[in-house]
Amino acid sequence: MIKVGIIGATGYAGGELVRILSGHKDAEIVWYGSRSYIDEKYADIYRNMFEIVEDSCLDDNMEELSKKADVIFTATPQGFCASVVNEGMLDNTKIIDLSADFRIKDVATYEKWYGIEHKSPRFIEEAVYGLCEVNREAVRNARLVANPGCYPTCSFLSIYPLAKEGMIDMNTLIIDAKSGTSGAGRGAKVGNLYCEVNENIKAYGVTGHRHTPEIEEQLGLASGEQVLLNFTTHLVPMNRGILVTAYASLKQKATYEEVRAAYDKYYDGERFVRVLEKDICPETRWVEGSNYVDVNFKVDERTGRIIMMGAMDNLVKGAAGQAVQNMNLMFGLPEDEGLAFVPLFP
Amino acid sequence: MIKVGIIGATGYAGGELVRILSGHKDAEIVWYGSRSYIDEKYADIYRNMFEIVEDSCLDDNMEELSKKADVIFTATPQGFCASVVNEGMLDNTKIIDLSADFRIKDVATYEKWYGIEHKSPRFIEEAVYGLCEVNREAVRNARLVANPGCYPTCSFLSIYPLAKEGMIDMNTLIIDAKSGTSGAGRGAKVGNLYCEVNENIKAYGVTGHRHTPEIEEQLGLASGEQVLLNFTTHLVPMNRGILVTAYASLKQKATYEEVRAAYDKYYDGERFVRVLEKDICPETRWVEGSNYVDVNFKVDERTGRIIMMGAMDNLVKGAAGQAVQNMNLMFGLPEDEGLAFVPLFP
Amino acid sequence: MIKVGIIGATGYAGGELVRILSGHKDAEIVWYGSRSYIDEKYADIYRNMFEIVEDSCLDDNMEELSKKADVIFTATPQGFCASVVNEGMLDNTKIIDLSADFRIKDVATYEKWYGIEHKSPRFIEEAVYGLCEVNREAVRNARLVANPGCYPTCSFLSIYPLAKEGMIDMNTLIIDAKSGTSGAGRGAKVGNLYCEVNENIKAYGVTGHRHTPEIEEQLGLASGEQVLLNFTTHLVPMNRGILVTAYASLKQKATYEEVRAAYDKYYDGERFVRVLEKDICPETRWVEGSNYVDVNFKVDERTGRIIMMGAMDNLVKGAAGQAVQNMNLMFGLPEDEGLAFVPLFP
Amino acid sequence: MIKVGIIGATGYAGGELVRILSGHKDAEIVWYGSRSYIDEKYADIYRNMFEIVEDSCLDDNMEELSKKADVIFTATPQGFCASVVNEGMLDNTKIIDLSADFRIKDVATYEKWYGIEHKSPRFIEEAVYGLCEVNREAVRNARLVANPGCYPTCSFLSIYPLAKEGMIDMNTLIIDAKSGTSGAGRGAKVGNLYCEVNENIKAYGVTGHRHTPEIEEQLGLASGEQVLLNFTTHLVPMNRGILVTAYASLKQKATYEEVRAAYDKYYDGERFVRVLEKDICPETRWVEGSNYVDVNFKVDERTGRIIMMGAMDNLVKGAAGQAVQNMNLMFGLPEDEGLAFVPLFP
Repeated sequence: MIKVGIIGATGYAGGELVRILSGHKDAEIVWYGSRSYIDEKYADIYRNMFEIVEDSCLDDNMEELSKKADVIFTATPQGFCASVVNEGMLDNTKIIDLSADFRIKDVATYEKWYGIEHKSPRFIEEAVYGLCEVNREAVRNARLVANPGCYPTCSFLSIYPLAKEGMIDMNTLIIDAKSGTSGAGRGAKVGNLYCEVNENIKAYGVTGHRHTPEIEEQLGLASGEQVLLNFTTHLVPMNRGILVTAYASLKQKATYEEVRAAYDKYYDGERFVRVLEKDICPETRWVEGSNYVDVNFKVDERTGRIIMMGAMDNLVKGAAGQAVQNMNLMFGLPEDEGLAFVPLFP
Repeated sequence: MIKVGIIGATGYAGGELVRILSGHKDAEIVWYGSRSYIDEKYADIYRNMFEIVEDSCLDDNMEELSKKADVIFTATPQGFCASVVNEGMLDNTKIIDLSADFRIKDVATYEKWYGIEHKSPRFIEEAVYGLCEVNREAVRNARLVANPGCYPTCSFLSIYPLAKEGMIDMNTLIIDAKSGTSGAGRGAKVGNLYCEVNENIKAYGVTGHRHTPEIEEQLGLASGEQVLLNFTTHLVPMNRGILVTAYASLKQKATYEEVRAAYDKYYDGERFVRVLEKDICPETRWVEGSNYVDVNFKVDERTGRIIMMGAMDNLVKGAAGQAVQNMNLMFGLPEDEGLAFVPLFP
Repeated sequence: MIKVGIIGATGYAGGELVRILSGHKDAEIVWYGSRSYIDEKYADIYRNMFEIVEDSCLDDNMEELSKKADVIFTATPQGFCASVVNEGMLDNTKIIDLSADFRIKDVATYEKWYGIEHKSPRFIEEAVYGLCEVNREAVRNARLVANPGCYPTCSFLSIYPLAKEGMIDMNTLIIDAKSGTSGAGRGAKVGNLYCEVNENIKAYGVTGHRHTPEIEEQLGLASGEQVLLNFTTHLVPMNRGILVTAYASLKQKATYEEVRAAYDKYYDGERFVRVLEKDICPETRWVEGSNYVDVNFKVDERTGRIIMMGAMDNLVKGAAGQAVQNMNLMFGLPEDEGLAFVPLFP
Repeated sequence: MIKVGIIGATGYAGGELVRILSGHKDAEIVWYGSRSYIDEKYADIYRNMFEIVEDSCLDDNMEELSKKADVIFTATPQGFCASVVNEGMLDNTKIIDLSADFRIKDVATYEKWYGIEHKSPRFIEEAVYGLCEVNREAVRNARLVANPGCYPTCSFLSIYPLAKEGMIDMNTLIIDAKSGTSGAGRGAKVGNLYCEVNENIKAYGVTGHRHTPEIEEQLGLASGEQVLLNFTTHLVPMNRGILVTAYASLKQKATYEEVRAAYDKYYDGERFVRVLEKDICPETRWVEGSNYVDVNFKVDERTGRIIMMGAMDNLVKGAAGQAVQNMNLMFGLPEDEGLAFVPLFP
């Protein structure tokens, strides 16, 4: 039985970790860390867990936790994990960090976009970017995994095969993304109140969203080119789901079959990536509650561009599900252990 | 492996049966019956099932199906099951009917409230009302189970202990129920369009909802009295969930502890009924996607009434989940096999 | 031109006052009071008002304001208005208080249900309960109007004719009410976040909602009896709207026509009360953005009860619209001046 | 008093025409045309109009109507208006067509994208594209106005100043648009049911949306270049609202002030276009129920692109409001007569 500790267990991503791990047959949660709710019963904060979780919340003492847990998930604000991780801790336990602290290899880029100092630059090199579909082997052997961001996961997987195959002009890439509101977290802010989000759609963080450099770095690695792109995010009145609509010019004309072959090359056999049938657009409702990413594309002969699309549950494949997928790899378990949820519809 | 056939597999309740049974380790679906979509791939109708279900839809030929399946779920409009069931069929297979055809023991009552002739009155006596928490033993031995209605399940379980213990005046009972929109089915009607349901709440079927006699009959059996009550339903802009708020006069003053003891007497050890802690009201979000019913109550000393409340996912405990719970009983499996979903939140 | 001051202009009710008064041809707002946003441009807080309102927010100094305004709306938390109102102020200006401070005639009842001391009991007697349909003449001559609560307005108007005519047994009255989320205010609370309210319905304040004594007092006045009732409120995932479903026993059998005659007796000629046609249930979508209350009823011969229903926009007839209706009466204007909104659908 | 006839009065755009015209002091509706609901009371179909509209629906006989009405709004499917309009009709009455029949000057383009034959090509030249902000003078003198599409209105107005000033490379233009569900109409289709739209976002009509050539033509006229662009639409779970996020490369570097000056040049003094303050993104909630279009932009120095954004109520400025704005111009009334709605929030 893998002993799991969660720091930040009462945010939405933390709550989803608890939900998923509650049904995982080889893992048990030994630490529900939540600074805000110390000593409160976890099931009083997430009442869906009533009679399922009996424990109360503990603080975020990673040192102590690292002696008890085989793996720690940090579902915490940026900067937390980098400020506490150390060599001794990593000798005792594995860490899967759901924040951005170890996702970006260039410290200056991290510090510029996140506006904070990185407290543990020495672990950046070691950290593995936990996108299983790309870094599967590295993840298996990692002590420290940087769990990818929600938008980057969906954006990258929608575009990856064409970037890797060099079929698109990376300088023309525009990613227009839409997210449900759970991505904004459980903090009490006026902007996230029901009446402010409902019956509304808006763009936010235009030209400055923090996930931009993460996407650029990963697509840069895939394509072998430096990538500068536009990434725009929108808040949608729904709980879960991310939809990505990405645009790029094809380097040269390509038929449906040729593009499809590129997608199949990378995603055949992937348990959690579904390349949809021709002309079927991904929709968030078809992946809700599951670890799937649905992707597809459409060639526009008029403009010479290709539209690449992806849909995903931001709390599952975009956070907790992917984190558990990483855990499974790190502990030699079947990759879909505890993740075989059929999407919930309606 | 239990061979399962589903008639009406493309309605919302049918879709939920498919979702649940896809993860059930002792059952496999051998027949996706759907008159409207014969020969279409099931996953083209419910795209969440892409790469999960490969089969196409078949017709609703129960005769043929009964030779292949160990159990048939009929998630069909009122009247269908009664019009096809026969002795030979029940020799071959078990039937769990999700419609109202066999829920009401009095034919005249059925025919009056449903406005159709009952085609198989001879099976009404045999049919077991499949509310596992009450009729567990009878269900185990049944050939034909009448799966309870969504509203009746939630209403009954909210009130049952006090009716059974004779603590409330049954003639004062008023049930005010609220349901998400999946309860209205997947038929294309103007009244169920997004823009008609969204940003709205309305009562419907006032004084004439068909679930009224079913609730009255079951509460009558529990209390040993004839019951006449008011039952009002409301349509709420959400996908899933039923909330019941029921009012009755206490026969005599009762403390919290006395009432609580009644609930505990009937629900202690029940896998899928959660009696909440004092003063915590049931909410549909805490049970979504699960087979739980959350119940609680509040005594009003000012008026001498008690308010009984219940929350449930109408497609799970209110339909497909309860049907699978019945199947598990009928085949000697653990009652929660394939039903151990943790509620999905948010 | 009536000079209007608003204290609490940045809450949802305050925002609605601004919206309505912006289109009122005989009123102009001279004071946007908002303690939290002093010196901020009003249109930065409610961007719908961009290029419509140029002013910035001021503090809540009622003394100063009373010298400048012909009428002050206090859309403030309980206790504020009672703590500042004085004789001199009422010599200078009229006050329409949207809080509960002057709604309840019995101080002890107020203090018990609201849990605060009443600071101005001497004005309670003078204050007029501003339900225009009942107290029209008194409102015309009032200096201080207690604008009714949202739930009480909808509950009372749904029941009033039958209470007044003595047709229902007041001791059997049960009011089950449902409200959109704007009723919960614009404060930043976890419980009101989008993801907490969306896809959910719950009861709250069961047996203890503060609007209970207000409804009881008004129905008591109408019926000439002391009234004790059950009043339960529910939070619905929509922005605006209140729906009331009320139950009572008829004192004696009554036909549709007899009951209808009672409704017509009180509501014929009422500009903002629409008694719907037979069998049509009120729905919140049909009144959204307007000052209408839609009411109707259904007699249940089986149980001898009558179900009385009402739908209303909680921010308009339930708050700002009714306040402006009161203002119109107090200043001798047509009652619907600035209130002739056609409901917005969808 | 302008006598108005509406053909297609029971669709959502038709309903919005009725709502707006009900409050228009110089217009009265003399014909509620609705093939599907002939002889039914209009207020039985849109119950928000109860006690406001007493008339019943009539058929869609344009010949007869043209003898009674000063202006006819055709809120009908593509092809209807073109199939009935004739010279005699236009001698009698003005026509404002809310369909696409007369929006596109090139018949072949219309027939290709809409897949139907154009029955009245001879009126295409005469028809004025009713975007008041651009064609104000022509609209004043028109007999036949082609009311712009919802997406084209929002897209065009977001981009127009920069296209007109030649500041952006038109060949790089990508428009990613999001719409509420009322844009899909009131037809009973499974895809528009509440449970199918709620908790979901999807792209649709990718590379083939019919509004593409309309946008290309208008931007071509503005820029003096032939325009080929990508236009992608998304369905958002909300009733009203369109948000446009458009991307293009700047021909040469431009400061905020330079771009802002271009917007101001065209929109200063425009009653219904609000250019927001720096860094404020348009949101649909701030325009709901009103005739405003809110626009703004953001320069991305990293990529050399500009992001242009617009928000609008699809049923008002995107349909009925703009149609009434056109009517006002055609009849010499103030452009905002009957359109001075303050946006409704929340």
